[in-house]
Parts: sequence; C-alpha cells; structure tokens
Amino acid sequence: MANFHPISEVKALTFDVFGTVVDWRKSIAREIKQVGIEKGFILDWDGFADEWRAGYGPSMNKVRTGELEWANIDTLHRMILDSLLETYNINSLDESEKQRLNKAWHRLDPWSDSVEGLTYLKENYIISSLSNGNVALLVNMAKYGGLPWDTVLSAELVRHYKPDREAYLSTAEFFGLPIEKVMMVAAHKNDLKSARSTGMRTAYVPRPNEHGPNVETDREPEDYIDIIADDFIDLSKKLSKVRETGSIPE
Amino acid sequence: MANFHPISEVKALTFDVFGTVVDWRKSIAREIKQVGIEKGFILDWDGFADEWRAGYGPSMNKVRTGELEWANIDTLHRMILDSLLETYNINSLDESEKQRLNKAWHRLDPWSDSVEGLTYLKENYIISSLSNGNVALLVNMAKYGGLPWDTVLSAELVRHYKPDREAYLSTAEFFGLPIEKVMMVAAHKNDLKSARSTGMRTAYVPRPNEHGPNVETDREPEDYIDIIADDFIDLSKKLSKVRETGSIPE
Repeated sequence: MANFHPISEVKALTFDVFGTVVDWRKSIAREIKQVGIEKGFILDWDGFADEWRAGYGPSMNKVRTGELEWANIDTLHRMILDSLLETYNINSLDESEKQRLNKAWHRLDPWSDSVEGLTYLKENYIISSLSNGNVALLVNMAKYGGLPWDTVLSAELVRHYKPDREAYLSTAEFFGLPIEKVMMVAAHKNDLKSARSTGMRTAYVPRPNEHGPNVETDREPEDYIDIIADDFIDLSKKLSKVRETGSIPE
Repeated sequence: MANFHPISEVKALTFDVFGTVVDWRKSIAREIKQVGIEKGFILDWDGFADEWRAGYGPSMNKVRTGELEWANIDTLHRMILDSLLETYNINSLDESEKQRLNKAWHRLDPWSDSVEGLTYLKENYIISSLSNGNVALLVNMAKYGGLPWDTVLSAELVRHYKPDREAYLSTAEFFGLPIEKVMMVAAHKNDLKSARSTGMRTAYVPRPNEHGPNVETDREPEDYIDIIADDFIDLSKKLSKVRETGSIPE
C-alpha cells in the first residue's frame, strides 16, 4: 500500500447526481402531473416517477452487457417512457410533448443543501459530477439548478456506465491525479463500494427522502466508506477537519 | 440549407483557450523567469515562451497524422520542454522541478476581460472550453483564473486535436444540439475556418497582444466569420443585440 495517500491529500470530489445531488422523484412527479393536468389524465404521479426510475438500471445493464449498443441516458429514458406511456394507455402526447417530458430529467431540483454545500467544497476541491447521465443532461441540470461544477464528468465520456470500473478510473485520468486523491460522493452504497474497489476515497451522504417519505434510511458504516455526512454542508465541515487534523472525525 | 438555424438560436459557446481566453506568453515567460532567477540562469524569457509554444502545433500534428500515438498536451508540452532545456543547456532542474515548470500551462492568466465577459455570456449560453489542452489542465486553469465554465470540453475527450473535425463535432453531440446552434469563439482564424466547415457558428475575438507588443492584428472579416468582437464583454453586447433584433450588428 506504499501508494496509498492519506485522506487529507484528496484533491477532487466526484458526485453521483440522481438522488445524491438532486431530488429526481419529486421533480419527475411534478412534471408528469403537469402534463396530466394539461392533457386530462390522472395517475399516481409519484408511482410513475418510481417506475420511470426503476427502468433505468435494467436498461443500462443491457448496454453494460452488450445486449444494447451504446445509448446515452436521454435515449434510455425515452425507451422507458415510451413503454410506460403504453402501459398507462396514454396516447395524447405528440412527439414534441414526449421529447419535452423526457427532458424533465434535465430539470431536477437540487436538495436544499446541495448548492450551498457544493459552493463551500469548491473552495478546496475540484468538484464534478460522475454520473451515468449524459453531458447535455448534466450541463442543463447544472444551469437549471445552479450547481457550481468545475466540470461535468459523465459515463458518456468513456462509454461505460457505473459500476463499470472504467467510469471511476476515468476521474483519475481526466484530473491527472492518482485515484486515491479522488473521492466519490454518493447516497448509494453500491456506488461507493464499486468506487472503492478502483482505489477511490468515498463519502456516503444518505438522502432519506430519495424514495419518498417513510422509507428507512441506512446509516450503517462500511469498511469501504471513509466518511458519512448528513448533507453536503456537513461533508464540507468534516473535510475541513480532515485537512486540519489529518484524521477523519467521528 | 433547410437545417440552418438563425444565429439568434445559438445555445452554446465553445472557446479556444490558449491565446483566446488566457495570455499564455506573459504567463509562461514569468514562470521560466522565476525558475531562472532561482537557478541562476538568464535567457530571453519571452523567446523561451514563444519557442515552447511553437513546438505545440508540430507535436500535435504528429499525433493527428498517427506518427505519434495519442498523447495529451501535458505530455507534449513536456517533450518540447525537455528538448528546449537541452537546446539552452539548462541542466540544473530535477524531475520535480521540471514537472512543476511543465504545469505552468495550468497557471495561465486570463485576459483582463475574460472572467467578466464569460460571466455575462454564461447568463444566456452554455459556455465551455473547446481546447486542445487536456481536461486536468483546463480544470486547473479555470480554478486558478476563476473561469466560470459550465463544463470543460477538450480534444482529449474524443482523442482528436483541433482542427480535426471530430473535435468540433463533439460539441454538438455532448450538448445534444444541432451543430448550427453551437458557436466557436477564437482569436485564430484557422480555428474558426475549420469550425465553420463542420457547421458551427463563429465569433472572432482578435487578441492583439497574444504574440507580444508591436505585432500587427488581423481584423479583416471573412465569409466564415459571423461576428467580430473586441473582447468577451463586447461579444456579450453583440450577442444581446442578436437576440433582440435577430440580426448581427455591424
């Protein structure tokens, strides 16, 4: 482990986005509800958002395993949407309305601490997305929500979706840093576990409302997690302590 | 030309960086001078900067033609530096000092209007680099100089240096836009001519001092240039007029 840098030497933070930085569920439910009101249909808006999101992992896995050729998230979201509209028997949307609804994923609200926390973190670290979202989606979302990224990194740049190792390893290559100087920040343990297996540092920021209210939140530490924080402002404080003391606060 | 969008529909501006956004010559001369003072050698600092820069195009061309395998700009800058140190018979730098000097290209000062102008332009457009510099260089430079990019685009992402068409065309793909809605901004006509040949809109911002004082500035219009501006603040004003009136101001 001669190459392993202490956590105080982390230079860049890369963030999972859907669920970690933004509240996809409430934002998507709001957009489908707005379309429903315009078009005169009613359904379980939150449930529709959940189903749209649920199609995401399986469709990426088809790309990851080679069953599907490379397709970006806009394309995958659209495939899932078309299938959901059929399931719900919604026939009243024309092509441009479907395109607009599909781009709801470019207009997701940040969690209330996200912009302030990222702004603090940016003072001491390179901050970027590391998302399966495509570059256009991430750039549009950043402008919509005021996310102050130094740059946008995306699975699209290396055509490997997380949890493929190539996605995590690309951060070190693009930033010209040893992988141990890059920290993955996510609300999802599986993302952090995969990141750590490539050598990244990890911060876990559980988002209790990602899947709606009354969902139990996993706050258990894991051997592949370096820091657990309540939100990005708390993460900024904890990383300040790391820089001051060289060790990780409880 | 049915697909050609009017200039008022431009959504993204992509900027050449070396010479267009930052003053490489003064910044590099300053850094080599500082090393010279520390190490006790004297040479023509501006001339050294010019020679270092002059090696850039030919070394990229070796990559573009396949004579060299893909190598990023940090690597190419280092090859040129090693050769220059030999030419000047400078033997007093150790490896870490050479690495630090090579990274002078990550610490280039913006022109005096760059940050203010980009900040205005960011209100109405996606703004990004489109540089042959690698991602790490561009991100570090943006943090050093306060360049408020929405994201960093680099030839490194598609492993094609400008003026390869792939570099320009990648902007449309990454931003999910027709290429006619992306405008290339550069201080160099050859960059704009190549950009236009792929369908991009173009803005020419001559930088009279890029190659030092007393160098004549080419301000001639060309059929491949849409807008000529004095600096980025002037570009912001001219693009406001375009959005208001739909046509390009004189």
